[in-house]
Amino acid sequence: MKIAKPIQALIESFQKLPGVGPKSAQRLTYYLLHVPQIQLDEFSDSIMRLKKDTVLCSVCKNIGETEPCPICSDKSRDHTQVLVVEQPLDILAFERTGKFKGVYHVLHGAINPLENIGPDEIYIQQLLDRISNMESGIKEVIIATNPTMEGNATAMYLRKQIQLLITDNQLLITRLGMGIPTGADLEYADETTLTQALEGRREI
Amino acid sequence: MKIAKPIQALIESFQKLPGVGPKSAQRLTYYLLHVPQIQLDEFSDSIMRLKKDTVLCSVCKNIGETEPCPICSDKSRDHTQVLVVEQPLDILAFERTGKFKGVYHVLHGAINPLENIGPDEIYIQQLLDRISNMESGIKEVIIATNPTMEGNATAMYLRKQIQLLITDNQLLITRLGMGIPTGADLEYADETTLTQALEGRREI
Repeated sequence: MKIAKPIQALIESFQKLPGVGPKSAQRLTYYLLHVPQIQLDEFSDSIMRLKKDTVLCSVCKNIGETEPCPICSDKSRDHTQVLVVEQPLDILAFERTGKFKGVYHVLHGAINPLENIGPDEIYIQQLLDRISNMESGIKEVIIATNPTMEGNATAMYLRKQIQLLITDNQLLITRLGMGIPTGADLEYADETTLTQALEGRREI
Repeated sequence: MKIAKPIQALIESFQKLPGVGPKSAQRLTYYLLHVPQIQLDEFSDSIMRLKKDTVLCSVCKNIGETEPCPICSDKSRDHTQVLVVEQPLDILAFERTGKFKGVYHVLHGAINPLENIGPDEIYIQQLLDRISNMESGIKEVIIATNPTMEGNATAMYLRKQIQLLITDNQLLITRLGMGIPTGADLEYADETTLTQALEGRREI
């Protein structure tokens, strides 16, 4: 028996999503056969509008509805501090802490030679332009790429490029603190994390 | 910071799917921001058409494009044998074996008092009508509901209802064989499965 074409089409669309295999795609599709058409229309509509109704902020490259985005146009935030992240979702994580009052820059990826992603494929030049622009008055760049091989390579590359750009030492380049996360069990911590936790120890 | 409305809308749609939590919904949505609009249009279109372009087969209640479905209209299949399943996906599993040449009946669920699903909420009456219809000539009903509490309760209920319906003993009512699955490790098999495997032992 062949699966009906409209069902097969949706299974294939679901399978293109990250982390969704053939079985999950089938399960999700057959689940949707039991929901009201109005919910399907909403779902369909929100997918179609996702990119059409959003814009990339010309300043920080975050995805939002307005240009510039609400954070970049917020006068109460500290525009001299720029936190550099890989993905828009990372901004949400920092905003949830409520502790960061500066602005952001989204790279939309990390340098990854294995996947042919070089410095030109992500928004690095735009960050360098932002820093070299005198009007922006940036005093600190906090590099918050992921603590992975790609994220670390990107952080190193960024530091080098920024240092080439800035002749005086007015700009501070920092990287997020590394160490053991809250709630972790020391017994299961890996060597790299423990080494970094030792190196990053602070007086209490 | 608030998430842009079009993004929030899609996150909420994803969250309504079974097994998709807030984090997965965010991840899927932000992933889709990076795919070409044409792929989004295809995805959106296939969701919208899912129910509009499919029909419920009037005979077996399977979901397909034609009425009756390809299996019910296939003259080469054995229409005297009806295999009763909970979901359309179960049919695919049996079709993959290539060993079953009869026809199906999809209940679209199982009796589940905790979720207010009684015999009237699923296609039980339609199965009974099919059996009592003399023209159908059904000789065997194979009950293949899941080996769960709900599936077993549904099987028991079905057996009782069918026996009330049939006065002569011309109709065979069977249930799928229970026991250890291929590739399983006896060490980890539960007591119920082992008991059923013992009871269902066969001469070799």
